[in-house]
Amino acid sequence: MKLGDGVEAAIHCCAVLASLEDGATMPGAALAETHGLSPSYLLKHLNALTTAKVLESLSGPLGGYRLARAPERITLLDIVLAVEGPEPAYRCAEIRRGGPNPLPASAYVKPCGINVAMLKAEKAYRAALAEVRLSDIVADFLEEADPRSIARSCAFVERHQRMQKSVSKQG
Amino acid sequence: MKLGDGVEAAIHCCAVLASLEDGATMPGAALAETHGLSPSYLLKHLNALTTAKVLESLSGPLGGYRLARAPERITLLDIVLAVEGPEPAYRCAEIRRGGPNPLPASAYVKPCGINVAMLKAEKAYRAALAEVRLSDIVADFLEEADPRSIARSCAFVERHQRMQKSVSKQG
Repeated sequence: MKLGDGVEAAIHCCAVLASLEDGATMPGAALAETHGLSPSYLLKHLNALTTAKVLESLSGPLGGYRLARAPERITLLDIVLAVEGPEPAYRCAEIRRGGPNPLPASAYVKPCGINVAMLKAEKAYRAALAEVRLSDIVADFLEEADPRSIARSCAFVERHQRMQKSVSKQG
Repeated sequence: MKLGDGVEAAIHCCAVLASLEDGATMPGAALAETHGLSPSYLLKHLNALTTAKVLESLSGPLGGYRLARAPERITLLDIVLAVEGPEPAYRCAEIRRGGPNPLPASAYVKPCGINVAMLKAEKAYRAALAEVRLSDIVADFLEEADPRSIARSCAFVERHQRMQKSVSKQG
């Protein structure tokens, strides 16, 4: 089982954006720089987060990305699904129907029990991801991380955030 | 997030092998045929299951695969880990260390909180998989599946299982 590496980048970017002042944005290039990632690589994932309405993207000289809603209302599940898509990890190809002496479709009205069991486990995974809010991630970081790491992160936000002229719907 | 399609094949094969008579084996080619899969494709996954000691492989004219222990003692987690390997789905690349003004390693003694949260969710997934025994899968199939599907499966096992001369440690 594997999550795409975009998930790590996406969660870290959302955590940075959760630290901006109200209404401020940060350009994609700055988000890429702060994590040592290529801007074009990151753009794909920022776009996915924007499409999923986890982020919003503002154009113009003060443009960039910001959270589309308060970090208390964004969960790890929102971010993972935005980047990875809604499909379950286990994708039943109905191999139970394969092989010799095939049966008509009417023999397979009930879902395959193996698929049911695998989807139940995925439900537990998603429930655990849905329990963690972006605000929890940021609070844990501020409480647990090394002070040098916190200071570095704060300095980066200070330097790269773009304040808007009028504070908008953020929060 | 994606599981390899080998997982579906592996669980179905284990379920078939759970239906053999005590000590009997089934050749890989028959397991492939029953699911309409290519034998060379399936071999890779049967090998992984054998390496993980979920299956055992017997050579010789009566050879083939059989479960290495009773189906009550094999879980979906055993099978998934055998095929997919032990690595977690979320693989932290420590991108928190990337970017300008790098800090010394001593600033990152504690694990990244994002990694901790993602691994906690994976633990919930694995716990859910570990709760389902192969014997549950087989019992559910016999209880829930269409009678035609059960009959087809039983006929296939009957035709392809290889009885051993002396019943061995199975069970």
